[in-house]
Amino acid sequence: MSTDIKAFQDYYADDYSHCYGCGRLNEYGLQIKSYWDGDESVCRILPKNYYSGGKADILYGGLIASLMDCHGAGTAAAAKAREQNIEMVAGAMPRFVTASLKVDYLVPTPVNIEIELRGTVKEIKGKKVTVGVTLSADEKICARGELIMIQLPEPQ
Amino acid sequence: MSTDIKAFQDYYADDYSHCYGCGRLNEYGLQIKSYWDGDESVCRILPKNYYSGGKADILYGGLIASLMDCHGAGTAAAAKAREQNIEMVAGAMPRFVTASLKVDYLVPTPVNIEIELRGTVKEIKGKKVTVGVTLSADEKICARGELIMIQLPEPQ
Repeated sequence: MSTDIKAFQDYYADDYSHCYGCGRLNEYGLQIKSYWDGDESVCRILPKNYYSGGKADILYGGLIASLMDCHGAGTAAAAKAREQNIEMVAGAMPRFVTASLKVDYLVPTPVNIEIELRGTVKEIKGKKVTVGVTLSADEKICARGELIMIQLPEPQ
Repeated sequence: MSTDIKAFQDYYADDYSHCYGCGRLNEYGLQIKSYWDGDESVCRILPKNYYSGGKADILYGGLIASLMDCHGAGTAAAAKAREQNIEMVAGAMPRFVTASLKVDYLVPTPVNIEIELRGTVKEIKGKKVTVGVTLSADEKICARGELIMIQLPEPQ
């Protein structure tokens, strides 16, 4: 990803930028970044190796759910912004919260490797957006998720 | 909880104790602890306030999924151990991995408050255990989860 292209999360309003997973104002968090890649959204991250599961060489399932949650929220927001032709300036990105999250863990995900999340918008219905997400390591899909996201009111 | 009662996670084998959410050997992790309370399992935790969602005063949805994941895995393990009358000594606790995780976020969960997870065993079928989990703050249920957990082979 070129560093001069801003991520979805860079356009969230300050008030909505404190998320542990994707908030640019959360100095303790993961600060993940999501971008369009055609009609799919993509996020790449090399998680610190202490985000392990029970075994030290396997990625933590809770982190997988967390990454899907944030990437899914970002994808829903960017899809809504694109549908409504919202001009992308600071604070202009809509903000979504998760109504439900479903993750199927297919095979163990290794640590110490860059992982890739890819999102697809399955449905936009008013303030409700359904997003599918895959998580891959070394080009192998390790987990699949589906999220139902709900758009929040504009910050006052 | 009395501190002289060991938690489910204290009986995991060392090799399976590196989890970011519940591993007693993961010094960077949350080290959650789960116990029986009759037929339900319970875990209480006051998460650090940087585990926030987009807004700084709301708990991170990814953390909620993570806590449910670990508490669900512990509950499945303890239920299996109880079913099989396994004597609880160091390393004796069976270890489960998550096949699927579903979380419904009902209302926002506040930060800076102790939260309580309660687990119920819905079904034990061989190596597959289905667990339901609620997450409450101030005695109000904020999220519900359901997990399908699969028992791992014994560590060699």
